[in-house]
Amino acid sequence: MNDQRWKQLRTHMDEQALEGLLITDPKHVGYLTGFFSDPHERFLGLAIPKHDEPFLVVPALDLEDAKAHSSVPLIRTHGDTDDAYALLQGWIGRVPGAFGIEKDHLSVSRFERLSAALGADRYADVGGVLSALRAAKTPEEIEKLRRAVHLIEAVLTEGLKHVRVGVTEIEIVAELEYQMKKLGAQGPSFDTMVLTGDKTALPHGTPGSRQIAAGDMLMFDMGVYLDGYASDITRTFAVAERPSEEATKIYETVLAANLAAIAHARPGVTLASVDAAAREVITEAGYGPHFMHRLGHGLGMDVHEHPSVHGANEQLVTEGLCFTVEPGIYVAGECGVRIEDDVIVTQGGVDVLTTFPKQLTVIG
Amino acid sequence: MNDQRWKQLRTHMDEQALEGLLITDPKHVGYLTGFFSDPHERFLGLAIPKHDEPFLVVPALDLEDAKAHSSVPLIRTHGDTDDAYALLQGWIGRVPGAFGIEKDHLSVSRFERLSAALGADRYADVGGVLSALRAAKTPEEIEKLRRAVHLIEAVLTEGLKHVRVGVTEIEIVAELEYQMKKLGAQGPSFDTMVLTGDKTALPHGTPGSRQIAAGDMLMFDMGVYLDGYASDITRTFAVAERPSEEATKIYETVLAANLAAIAHARPGVTLASVDAAAREVITEAGYGPHFMHRLGHGLGMDVHEHPSVHGANEQLVTEGLCFTVEPGIYVAGECGVRIEDDVIVTQGGVDVLTTFPKQLTVIG
Repeated sequence: MNDQRWKQLRTHMDEQALEGLLITDPKHVGYLTGFFSDPHERFLGLAIPKHDEPFLVVPALDLEDAKAHSSVPLIRTHGDTDDAYALLQGWIGRVPGAFGIEKDHLSVSRFERLSAALGADRYADVGGVLSALRAAKTPEEIEKLRRAVHLIEAVLTEGLKHVRVGVTEIEIVAELEYQMKKLGAQGPSFDTMVLTGDKTALPHGTPGSRQIAAGDMLMFDMGVYLDGYASDITRTFAVAERPSEEATKIYETVLAANLAAIAHARPGVTLASVDAAAREVITEAGYGPHFMHRLGHGLGMDVHEHPSVHGANEQLVTEGLCFTVEPGIYVAGECGVRIEDDVIVTQGGVDVLTTFPKQLTVIG
Repeated sequence: MNDQRWKQLRTHMDEQALEGLLITDPKHVGYLTGFFSDPHERFLGLAIPKHDEPFLVVPALDLEDAKAHSSVPLIRTHGDTDDAYALLQGWIGRVPGAFGIEKDHLSVSRFERLSAALGADRYADVGGVLSALRAAKTPEEIEKLRRAVHLIEAVLTEGLKHVRVGVTEIEIVAELEYQMKKLGAQGPSFDTMVLTGDKTALPHGTPGSRQIAAGDMLMFDMGVYLDGYASDITRTFAVAERPSEEATKIYETVLAANLAAIAHARPGVTLASVDAAAREVITEAGYGPHFMHRLGHGLGMDVHEHPSVHGANEQLVTEGLCFTVEPGIYVAGECGVRIEDDVIVTQGGVDVLTTFPKQLTVIG
């Protein structure tokens, strides 16, 4: 049990006068108890009543696994034909005041059943507290993030050996994901993206049977989960020959934007200003409308987590935050370039976890 | 646009006197429009106002992709710094009556923002209608399911060639997932499970660095997504030598339970009775408490979908339903066996999509 996390959660419960809370995001259950699992559609929860012992509720079939990993000793189970909410009512009782839930995680259906069972006066969102706890990475977590980044960079190095004219996007994806597993990743942290030619202009394109051709741009966006933590990197290459003047200008602009944001980020500035540092470079080069997404996102136990790095987020950058810096320019029908790094905020700036070279490189 | 689906949805809207509805499950957006995407934490929705043209709302960066695939021509976008709910209010207006949402999909946070924006009198759950639509598979969908099953069986055949004493669970997982991609799958339909020795007694165990040993049981539970549809198969093998008498008895009992459920399933019986057909066999053999999960689950665009096949589900089996039949016996510290098939309900019984042999086999 990580005492610091529990202490901050208890403090929050006291401040908000919560009679109890129910954590239902499986990653948060794991974050607080050490028991990580994917319950699929079954109910999983960590209940923390104000005056009673906290307890885990797990599907019956996960009991042995929960016993082996949970630091919370009291584990209750429900079977597939049980009504988990009726059981919760029996275990927690009717709630005479306010109760904390994760409003970003709990579905409306589940909330309706839960609130009918508990009958609390008010339901407060404790998602923000957990996001804030998670956003401030401990040295141990930073080390895990660093290892996840190191692994995906090794995968990229291996994958590049298989790039040559005529190979399809999907064949490279297969090779990359094989390397991920072989190098010990739990799996990709999101759908591995390999795009070529004018498909690079789709920020969320899907790899297919398109063959790599000389003169194309080739974009990799991928990451892994390793030991519960995610990495996320994007690099864009030129295939077989120097790219066109236009593509080169786009590449250099994106790289300059990436470096500008990294140079600007430090404790005390706003996340919006970090986004702006990159966006100004791209706008000045005349590509403003072609950078139609935020600069980045938090990275940790989820590949996308708190905070969001966009132009309207006035939250201050603080030490221990981990986020991506991934400016891009996308010209429909032509090409796109994105360069993404993972950074961790230090006392005086940021430490860039990703180390893969960023200068324009011709491969294959 | 699949007219039949839209027609049934419109009929439901009329019957329930809904002023409009908002579909937010990305798979349902795809099911109705042909535009499948993963918006991550960004807002994606299909709005169907009663008196107005339906429209898609997509993140700005997905516009090109949506235009290329959506059968709904009106596509609206929001940027990362926009408030998607304020935009929805502008597009839909205040709702003077009841409004349909997907309560299983929408989070409490999103619902609070949506209901503040729309101010409807009442929010009805349309999730059930969509689940019911999806549960009745069309011939085209059955063909896709069959191909997804065929692919995972080819993967299993390839994977078995790599099984020998000393190989680790995770090495086999890497090989299997490489084969999935190579054979054209979009990816695994869930975390590929390869468990050996007493880890087979964990219904949701995690593959690790444990080496396969002679005399072990070895369990594979895996599936793929292919063309948007999932497969899911479990087979359990003996490694290198005949298993113990106890393990053999467990295997034969699970197989008899699997066959009993398949023989029983047909239109008109309840799903509960299909579960019971398998459970009785296991209970009679003295292993009742060791089969601690439901018999199966619906299969289609999701690897776990409606309906749930368990002892309290009195829903009738109907033609076109697709579900898994996966009885198991788990003896903690010893071993577990599960045998899982995918079946589609026909006029007089079921068609078993999975064809991989089920008799007890010694491999490696």
